[in-house]
Amino acid sequence: MRPLRKPLETVTSLFRSTPKKVGLAPGALVYVGRQKVEKPAITFIDYSDDHLSVETDVSLDDCKPLKDSPSVSWINLDGIHEIGAVEDFGKTFDLHPLVLEDILNTGHRPKVEEFEDYLLIILKMLSFDEQSNQIQSEQISLVLTRNNVLSFQERPGDVFDGVRERLQRKSGRIRQRGPDYLTYALVDSIVDSYFHILEKIGDRLESLERELINQPTQDTLQQVYHFKGQLIYLRKAVWPLRELTNSLLQDEIVLIQESTLVFLRDLYDHSVQIIDTLEIFRDTASGLIDLYMSSVSHRMNEVMKVLTIMASLFIPLTFVAGIYGMNFELMPELKWRWGYPMVWGVMLCCAFGMLVYFKKKKWF
Amino acid sequence: MRPLRKPLETVTSLFRSTPKKVGLAPGALVYVGRQKVEKPAITFIDYSDDHLSVETDVSLDDCKPLKDSPSVSWINLDGIHEIGAVEDFGKTFDLHPLVLEDILNTGHRPKVEEFEDYLLIILKMLSFDEQSNQIQSEQISLVLTRNNVLSFQERPGDVFDGVRERLQRKSGRIRQRGPDYLTYALVDSIVDSYFHILEKIGDRLESLERELINQPTQDTLQQVYHFKGQLIYLRKAVWPLRELTNSLLQDEIVLIQESTLVFLRDLYDHSVQIIDTLEIFRDTASGLIDLYMSSVSHRMNEVMKVLTIMASLFIPLTFVAGIYGMNFELMPELKWRWGYPMVWGVMLCCAFGMLVYFKKKKWF
Amino acid sequence: MRPLRKPLETVTSLFRSTPKKVGLAPGALVYVGRQKVEKPAITFIDYSDDHLSVETDVSLDDCKPLKDSPSVSWINLDGIHEIGAVEDFGKTFDLHPLVLEDILNTGHRPKVEEFEDYLLIILKMLSFDEQSNQIQSEQISLVLTRNNVLSFQERPGDVFDGVRERLQRKSGRIRQRGPDYLTYALVDSIVDSYFHILEKIGDRLESLERELINQPTQDTLQQVYHFKGQLIYLRKAVWPLRELTNSLLQDEIVLIQESTLVFLRDLYDHSVQIIDTLEIFRDTASGLIDLYMSSVSHRMNEVMKVLTIMASLFIPLTFVAGIYGMNFELMPELKWRWGYPMVWGVMLCCAFGMLVYFKKKKWF
Amino acid sequence: MRPLRKPLETVTSLFRSTPKKVGLAPGALVYVGRQKVEKPAITFIDYSDDHLSVETDVSLDDCKPLKDSPSVSWINLDGIHEIGAVEDFGKTFDLHPLVLEDILNTGHRPKVEEFEDYLLIILKMLSFDEQSNQIQSEQISLVLTRNNVLSFQERPGDVFDGVRERLQRKSGRIRQRGPDYLTYALVDSIVDSYFHILEKIGDRLESLERELINQPTQDTLQQVYHFKGQLIYLRKAVWPLRELTNSLLQDEIVLIQESTLVFLRDLYDHSVQIIDTLEIFRDTASGLIDLYMSSVSHRMNEVMKVLTIMASLFIPLTFVAGIYGMNFELMPELKWRWGYPMVWGVMLCCAFGMLVYFKKKKWF
Amino acid sequence: MRPLRKPLETVTSLFRSTPKKVGLAPGALVYVGRQKVEKPAITFIDYSDDHLSVETDVSLDDCKPLKDSPSVSWINLDGIHEIGAVEDFGKTFDLHPLVLEDILNTGHRPKVEEFEDYLLIILKMLSFDEQSNQIQSEQISLVLTRNNVLSFQERPGDVFDGVRERLQRKSGRIRQRGPDYLTYALVDSIVDSYFHILEKIGDRLESLERELINQPTQDTLQQVYHFKGQLIYLRKAVWPLRELTNSLLQDEIVLIQESTLVFLRDLYDHSVQIIDTLEIFRDTASGLIDLYMSSVSHRMNEVMKVLTIMASLFIPLTFVAGIYGMNFELMPELKWRWGYPMVWGVMLCCAFGMLVYFKKKKWF
Repeated sequence: MRPLRKPLETVTSLFRSTPKKVGLAPGALVYVGRQKVEKPAITFIDYSDDHLSVETDVSLDDCKPLKDSPSVSWINLDGIHEIGAVEDFGKTFDLHPLVLEDILNTGHRPKVEEFEDYLLIILKMLSFDEQSNQIQSEQISLVLTRNNVLSFQERPGDVFDGVRERLQRKSGRIRQRGPDYLTYALVDSIVDSYFHILEKIGDRLESLERELINQPTQDTLQQVYHFKGQLIYLRKAVWPLRELTNSLLQDEIVLIQESTLVFLRDLYDHSVQIIDTLEIFRDTASGLIDLYMSSVSHRMNEVMKVLTIMASLFIPLTFVAGIYGMNFELMPELKWRWGYPMVWGVMLCCAFGMLVYFKKKKWF
Repeated sequence: MRPLRKPLETVTSLFRSTPKKVGLAPGALVYVGRQKVEKPAITFIDYSDDHLSVETDVSLDDCKPLKDSPSVSWINLDGIHEIGAVEDFGKTFDLHPLVLEDILNTGHRPKVEEFEDYLLIILKMLSFDEQSNQIQSEQISLVLTRNNVLSFQERPGDVFDGVRERLQRKSGRIRQRGPDYLTYALVDSIVDSYFHILEKIGDRLESLERELINQPTQDTLQQVYHFKGQLIYLRKAVWPLRELTNSLLQDEIVLIQESTLVFLRDLYDHSVQIIDTLEIFRDTASGLIDLYMSSVSHRMNEVMKVLTIMASLFIPLTFVAGIYGMNFELMPELKWRWGYPMVWGVMLCCAFGMLVYFKKKKWF
Repeated sequence: MRPLRKPLETVTSLFRSTPKKVGLAPGALVYVGRQKVEKPAITFIDYSDDHLSVETDVSLDDCKPLKDSPSVSWINLDGIHEIGAVEDFGKTFDLHPLVLEDILNTGHRPKVEEFEDYLLIILKMLSFDEQSNQIQSEQISLVLTRNNVLSFQERPGDVFDGVRERLQRKSGRIRQRGPDYLTYALVDSIVDSYFHILEKIGDRLESLERELINQPTQDTLQQVYHFKGQLIYLRKAVWPLRELTNSLLQDEIVLIQESTLVFLRDLYDHSVQIIDTLEIFRDTASGLIDLYMSSVSHRMNEVMKVLTIMASLFIPLTFVAGIYGMNFELMPELKWRWGYPMVWGVMLCCAFGMLVYFKKKKWF
Repeated sequence: MRPLRKPLETVTSLFRSTPKKVGLAPGALVYVGRQKVEKPAITFIDYSDDHLSVETDVSLDDCKPLKDSPSVSWINLDGIHEIGAVEDFGKTFDLHPLVLEDILNTGHRPKVEEFEDYLLIILKMLSFDEQSNQIQSEQISLVLTRNNVLSFQERPGDVFDGVRERLQRKSGRIRQRGPDYLTYALVDSIVDSYFHILEKIGDRLESLERELINQPTQDTLQQVYHFKGQLIYLRKAVWPLRELTNSLLQDEIVLIQESTLVFLRDLYDHSVQIIDTLEIFRDTASGLIDLYMSSVSHRMNEVMKVLTIMASLFIPLTFVAGIYGMNFELMPELKWRWGYPMVWGVMLCCAFGMLVYFKKKKWF
Repeated sequence: MRPLRKPLETVTSLFRSTPKKVGLAPGALVYVGRQKVEKPAITFIDYSDDHLSVETDVSLDDCKPLKDSPSVSWINLDGIHEIGAVEDFGKTFDLHPLVLEDILNTGHRPKVEEFEDYLLIILKMLSFDEQSNQIQSEQISLVLTRNNVLSFQERPGDVFDGVRERLQRKSGRIRQRGPDYLTYALVDSIVDSYFHILEKIGDRLESLERELINQPTQDTLQQVYHFKGQLIYLRKAVWPLRELTNSLLQDEIVLIQESTLVFLRDLYDHSVQIIDTLEIFRDTASGLIDLYMSSVSHRMNEVMKVLTIMASLFIPLTFVAGIYGMNFELMPELKWRWGYPMVWGVMLCCAFGMLVYFKKKKWF
């Protein structure tokens, strides 16, 4: 188990994004995220049943022929902070300005939207930074046209390597099928990656639970709050997924062939499974906080009891000792032969009576 | 980060408005807000594809010709506390008395209502006063007729400057399109402004979170309560927005052209995004309160432990000292040669035993 | 701000009513409320476009001719504890025994029910007793027939004076329209009166909030609980209102003319607005309780700190003083020349060390 | 107000029943309750417009002719623990084995189920044992056939005496109508009895509220928990009632005549009213627990303040006294003429200063 | 009542499973559970109205003829960790790769999915390990084809022995009916077994409740948390059951004969009953935690009172004793004849006054 470290960022910071200026025309392109890559890079994979060509770092012009070619092409753009590049891209593939606005608005809610000639899918690609125990989010936009899949990422590096490998294999099912199946495969990769994040969060929660049971500290508690915040964030990214897959299934979308529906149904099941686990994790995190609070109460109680026992035992005795420490000239007891032992007797009886009382009250 | 100041108003005061007299006829015009401007002022922008005229501080009579002119006119009334002015306005544009009542009832819930010849949209324009950390609300009513958009504001100053600028530009899309698109543009400006308010509240929440983690005070907590109240208020203004945009989309409203629907869909997405963020902020605020409470518990625990350790260590010792401060004539120990060092020995052992015990209990 | 007084009644008592005997035939008439007026009294207002007659304290026989007269009549019965009177009334106007049972069952939920020839609307008329800070509830049943509106009240005094005034004015819209509009006007008066109750409760909540922030006492808290109870009660009366107005709108009720629908839509808006405010008040009241609890925790913390500082400072010092109060014959320090100042020195150092420690812990 | 006694049973025990063996064939008859009567007893009431015969303790054979006779018969079986008897009953009246299984499964959820020739209604008859403050539950199953109503009870004694009386009266509506009305009358009796239980629980809650406000003890709290448990239990029995009555209304059930529908609508209203009250009682019970907790906090606070004031006042004074109790040979103050009064002066100032400080802090 | 033992595992560990690699092709078979049996074992029961053959430990080839034989066959595979075996199985019976993936994904949510020729039902078989107080879960997948039922289990041992026995009996209904009834019988066995688990959890909760009322310890509380975790887990397994049975009822599934529907309706009732009980158990567990917390508060209060009474009584007295322990040369009281008794008098008055004050405050 790797050590738990103090969170580096506040929970609130997770949920904030810079809004665009008020009153801008709709479709006015503004990138609201942070610049995450130096230069946008275009790569494409063009394939059909019997051929495959993979090109990296091409120009937009290289992609133009792909637009109407019958083979399936997956064109990927890494880095969307250069608005001009995205705009050109949009013009080349006839995308509505509002689509481009959605692609650039990296705080957008995951959604699917059908247009006349294409389908827009917006998703969050999540990763879990083990150093900072922080979820990193990146917006992926997929546009499914008749022959192509366009994907837009904020920065290089994604969870699609498995899909790329499968495209290489000539015999794979993915090579036989159309762009709708490719889209499914990409979305499926993202959803699969959510399971891995859940596993890591589960790891952390389990080690936090152990800490809380054995030796709870205020620090552990802040960690739990931190994870609860992460779960709220994850929830925001994952909940719309169910709607999204469901509307892919329910709406009779022209661009999706019927043979792909069985896979989408599988995707829907996975979304529900992820949401279920997420909800349970939230319940568990809440339970951990309650456990901590009750554990703190319990400890306080213990401390109080010790204090009360000590004070209640000795305060009366000290009083008795104080009495015979007085300097009155006429204190007959002081002269008595057995005065001192008697006082001891009185004090011991008194202490013993207290102890019996506390024992009866089950204080120790 | 600007300093957090104590809220100036109670949370409850946010939600109150003066109701009109019971039993008044429906449509009886009563203004329930406070007077916020000296004199109502009418301005209009009349435009079509190839002309634009902007007039400020005109009389109602100047607007009459606009009513049936084919060009699109946006007529704005600032200051609705003068009931007579609103009534005249209503008569000029054939508005139902209930519509006027709704416009004047500044505590009204955001809504959209279709009438035979026009469409009424009631919205809240919000602003965040950085001085008092208080959300300011102003009711905006929009009436979309065949050729005109009428807007009613409580006071001058709004979030529509972006729209006005775009109207100036001859090439802009807004000049080509009808009053339904103008209405959309106005509503969109308001919705965009909500993102800015959310950003400011996010700012404050983040700084409150930092304060709570580092050095929580009762004052910080009252600030969190204050913000929670603001979020409840915001929620009241924003929740109906989803319904509102949705019913604009779903109902086949004659006055809205089909080409505007894609923009309304975008608006709907934004409403959902705002509500999502709002809900998350509420969760976060609740989490902050829990964090504060647990932090207070933790501190109390710390304090208790110090008290218990000090008291438990010294009370028995003081008792022992008290014993040998007694003035009995016959106390053999007092005469012993090593009596004094022995007492010190007993006391040190006793204190050491305590410390070991507390150490074992992990109290320090 | 009027002073807040201790509630006179328990919250639970608000929700209780005496049920009728088990197994009675349905339609068996039993009055479950308390008798609130000595003798039932019938009054009617008969009006049409061009005439108006108002009669008070008439007999049932006087009302018979109104039943089939073409003019609109509003017949009101104050005092429904005399079952015979209600039964006669029912027979005269052909009401189903179950309708009469509902009218007498003053614990009934607000509802609307359509019968073949008439429409039954049951509502709660609420008032807020400023003396006892208690909501008073009275059940109003309205029966809308083809030409008449029958209203049943538990006791004299209602919120309909505005309607009566408007009926007097010859030019008013209400005189031109049928009994459905009169019914609407009556329901509208009741709904308007809810706004006034909300305002009063808002008043109280605000003053409670102020008290809680400035100087919370256990008494203030009990007041908040009391108001929370009142809000639960109000909720019970108001929630069904939305359903009620909605079903008036949705169901195509024969007795309601289409021109009245626009007013009902207005009524529906108002119901939603009331429910919204109510929910917010409940949230606010819950928030106040949390605020009180955290404020109590905070105070406890303060008190604990003072105790701990005092005790931790002086207990060790007292111990030191106790040491040199012992009467051992051989205590070399007692003989030292600088013994006394040295002890003072030790004690001051010790106290100073403590203060520094507490300061570092930010306890004061 | 009768005294509140400690609950005799745990809350959990309310919700438990012994399940049947796993893997038994469906329809295998197993009685899961406790035997509550020595011998099953059959009684019937056969009536039509003009005759009535009541027979108690008859054999099953006596009932056979009733099955196809045109008059309405209500056949009641008390004691369903003898599986054989129930099975014979089932065979005589052609009931499906699954129906019998449901009748015997006394932990079954209230429901209505339509079969080809008959309608099964399962309900809970509740009573409130004033001795143990415990709700007693008994399952009633009603089977409505074309001419008969069969009822199955766990033990003798029910809430149907009112119905039996009404059947005796020749002129009563119930004699004119069919078995569907009788079924309604029986269900109505049960629902009426719920109001009485609610009244008793209201009684108890009110007296608990009074206790909590005046003198809360741990015992009172356990009572509130006990009642909360009872309310959860009641809820389990009552919630399905709404669905049940609703499905009687909505589904076009052949065996229910249209003229009975108006009564069922009344029944539905009552179910909703019961559920409303129940929910409010739950809210109230939760509120009581909160009130107790805050009251305990408040008391703790009070206690802490007294402790702190006492300790803070006297600990420094005792220290001063301790100082001058030391036996140093050289303590100049001891020799001073005004030493003793001066010490008193110092101590009084010190105490006075403390009191002023506490007063300023509003601690008393 | 068996003793309650400390939970052996964390609650979080219950909810975790190892996800498959990201980006694998859908239908790629990966077993995500732990290997629970050495070698997969196939058994089948082939039966019709008049014959029955039971074979254990057969090879897949032995099963092939069963596929198209008209008799009903139930083929069971214990141990699904050998992917090859499952794949062969799938090929033999023409199962879609996604079905096999679901069968192997032991973290799958219970569901029903209809394919062209068969129906897939995924369920959780639960058992309660009395040693560790831990719920054990095993995934059961049932595939209903035209003539066969295929079942896949993670390890040997199940709850189907009752079904096997009923299959042996020649006269049983199950022998007369098709594979849909067999499927129903298997699902019914699993659902029945849930009742037994609920009973055991009820046992535990009841004994925990008793412990909490009599002598709450921190350990009891951790047990309650543990059970709450188990209930959340159970909920995850059981909630989908309602949907599942409901969709079996609602969708017109070809493979399910109409005569089986009445049994499925019964199954649906049972699912609802289980969910009801589960929800109540969760409420009860939450209530127990509240009870513990309030009980802890109460005890703390008790402890505080004793401490306060002791300290407040004796601290002033000790102060008085301290006064007259001072060694001033001029303390006139010390010389007085009645000085010592007077001091006693003062101290007794003081103590008595305190006691009266505390009594009035109802502190004991």
